[in-house]
Amino acid sequence: MSDYAYVRVDGARLQQTLGDLARIGATPGGGVTRLALSDEDRAARDHLADLMREAGLTVRGDDFGNMTGRRAGTSDLPPIQLASHLDTVRSGGRFDGALGVVAALEVMRTLDDARIETRRPLEVVNWTNEEGVRFEPAMMGSGAATGRFERDWVDARTDRDGFAFGAELERIGYRGTARDRPAKAGAYLELHIEQGPTLDDAELPVGIVEGIVGITWLDVVVEGRADHAGPSPMGTRRDALVAATALISKVQRIALAMGEPAVGTVGRLSVEPNSINTIPGKVTLSADFRNRTGDGLDQMVAELNETAALIRSEGEIGVSLDRFWTSEPTPFASNVVAEVAGAVADLGLPERRLWSGAGHDAKYAADVSPAGMIFVRSRGGISHNEQEWSDPRDVEAGANVLLLATLRLADAGG
Amino acid sequence: MSDYAYVRVDGARLQQTLGDLARIGATPGGGVTRLALSDEDRAARDHLADLMREAGLTVRGDDFGNMTGRRAGTSDLPPIQLASHLDTVRSGGRFDGALGVVAALEVMRTLDDARIETRRPLEVVNWTNEEGVRFEPAMMGSGAATGRFERDWVDARTDRDGFAFGAELERIGYRGTARDRPAKAGAYLELHIEQGPTLDDAELPVGIVEGIVGITWLDVVVEGRADHAGPSPMGTRRDALVAATALISKVQRIALAMGEPAVGTVGRLSVEPNSINTIPGKVTLSADFRNRTGDGLDQMVAELNETAALIRSEGEIGVSLDRFWTSEPTPFASNVVAEVAGAVADLGLPERRLWSGAGHDAKYAADVSPAGMIFVRSRGGISHNEQEWSDPRDVEAGANVLLLATLRLADAGG
Repeated sequence: MSDYAYVRVDGARLQQTLGDLARIGATPGGGVTRLALSDEDRAARDHLADLMREAGLTVRGDDFGNMTGRRAGTSDLPPIQLASHLDTVRSGGRFDGALGVVAALEVMRTLDDARIETRRPLEVVNWTNEEGVRFEPAMMGSGAATGRFERDWVDARTDRDGFAFGAELERIGYRGTARDRPAKAGAYLELHIEQGPTLDDAELPVGIVEGIVGITWLDVVVEGRADHAGPSPMGTRRDALVAATALISKVQRIALAMGEPAVGTVGRLSVEPNSINTIPGKVTLSADFRNRTGDGLDQMVAELNETAALIRSEGEIGVSLDRFWTSEPTPFASNVVAEVAGAVADLGLPERRLWSGAGHDAKYAADVSPAGMIFVRSRGGISHNEQEWSDPRDVEAGANVLLLATLRLADAGG
Repeated sequence: MSDYAYVRVDGARLQQTLGDLARIGATPGGGVTRLALSDEDRAARDHLADLMREAGLTVRGDDFGNMTGRRAGTSDLPPIQLASHLDTVRSGGRFDGALGVVAALEVMRTLDDARIETRRPLEVVNWTNEEGVRFEPAMMGSGAATGRFERDWVDARTDRDGFAFGAELERIGYRGTARDRPAKAGAYLELHIEQGPTLDDAELPVGIVEGIVGITWLDVVVEGRADHAGPSPMGTRRDALVAATALISKVQRIALAMGEPAVGTVGRLSVEPNSINTIPGKVTLSADFRNRTGDGLDQMVAELNETAALIRSEGEIGVSLDRFWTSEPTPFASNVVAEVAGAVADLGLPERRLWSGAGHDAKYAADVSPAGMIFVRSRGGISHNEQEWSDPRDVEAGANVLLLATLRLADAGG
């Protein structure tokens, strides 16, 4: 247990700050619409900048609009970054993204109140356009700052009304410079609501995130023969939908056999000619596989390919698989995960490790810095929805984990 | 064996007549487009009327455009009707419908050549709008003449350009009178290509049709919960598509277990929200069941309901079935089927009995007259397609079955 393991955030202050922020872009249904680089985003940024300055942080902004508030350390070692995002989806919730930024700010305030200095500098980061709803793709600010996306390409991304990212960034007054990007950190920490039901089902306030799963997407085409449903005896049919059901079931079985965090989903499916009295001649379906290792993903695809080969060999049905996109898994840095686990233990909370099934800025931050994440229980796992809700006690517990993990990683008292 | 069992049609003449007719509405791809009450339909009707008069038949037309050519018998007993239709689907084949009319005409010519008189009168019938492609529903002329559809309702049916059945019937000059409808017959015989692969697979030229299967259609709604495909562990999902696969498989198993001619088809299926990374929240699908008895149809629906109940009981998935349409089975008259079988035996052809999985005018004719059908092998079971093809030898065999069955039913020589 570290020397500062008994310091705690101010839960009431955290809730107050979270509530204030939720009024910017508030929807009648109790949620928030704060699209990236919108007027609401600007208002939220202005508000955050004020709060960071009030907390004594030095505020800077980079050429993608990523905002950083820095608390000096007793050394010039690379900082500990506490990051998340303030943009939301349309009619989203008040926790997704905002909670991580507000909790990071609360950590800074708590350290000031306790007059704690850290050896490493600390930084609060607000990434631009994590959601990717207004400008695709998602996690744009973190991906750009860490070298995944080129400046010109990012600037030219347009929303559905034709407004470009670069022009909108300048319009809201948040175009900074490349030298002010969040740099390689000693450690990167991101607190976020889970956006899934695992913690809620297990009745646990927080989770220690071990990584972000890899994702691979396939398009599958099943080709049989469209015939009249009446005069075609069962034995002579080449029914593409019946063949497709074997693939749908296999996607499930592959994921179940692999065990958590592996998942497999057929989300999209279309039938041709899609007529009540015609045997389906062609079915097109998608497969989404997620797993913690690239080998694991490859194995899931290989097993689906086996079923496809079996279908092809059994009858006159064609099956083709196109693995058209893969996002590699991101296992988090073991030392960061260990310090998060240490913080959870310091707080006497039950230890629960899990993988994130969805992407987060931590994925791209991990390209340059040792990274980790803390999940906070979200009621029913509901997210991207006005009904999104996390209990104030869970929020406070999560912020305390962030605080203590930060102290462990920042060489507090150094 | 009847006294006239050695008389035979003229296969070459039959082919010539069939080929002449196929030029009316011929498509570049070798098929025929002759929509009901179109100019092409009028030309085909004019041609048929000429041929019937040349064959010594008395031609009349009814108020739905159904055409009848009558050959007198030695009695005024109810006639034997030999019927089919001259209309086609768009880019259809040259056999579907036309073959039955041409074969009926060939029977008349053959009897004249052989100077055979029959006790019962004989009638060649061309039903209006069997296909139901231009004006819905299908089998309109036979259904109307036998009392299924009201005159005003039929006249008001419009095509996709807004033209009404009644006006189009008058435009082509084929509005007759109600008293000239085909009346209750001593027996009704319809020769038609199979439109399925059963005879082709068994390498048989003709089939003895025992009836037309009943059909029932259901809409099935499966309701789960749409969740993000990433952060939702397999065990907590309520995946509507995975649940739907059990229903699709069950539709197949029900039909296979029931045996021929029972069939079951899921032809239509849609997924909501149908997004690659979202667990399907709702699936809507159709079920088409066909069987030879109403009880058999009821049992198929009951078995699907059992699976629906099982899904509901296993998890938090809703399943609702709406059986929204049923067409009752039409078993043919045993004496007519027996005489068709007798004719097949007279010809030394192998006996193969089967049920029609698709509807034909014989279904409505059977409402008022003892009915039966003869199927002719169709290559690959392909129909409603320019590639539709029946071998001339099979066509001749079918016409000879029609001839001999007619003689058996008409009390030839009486």
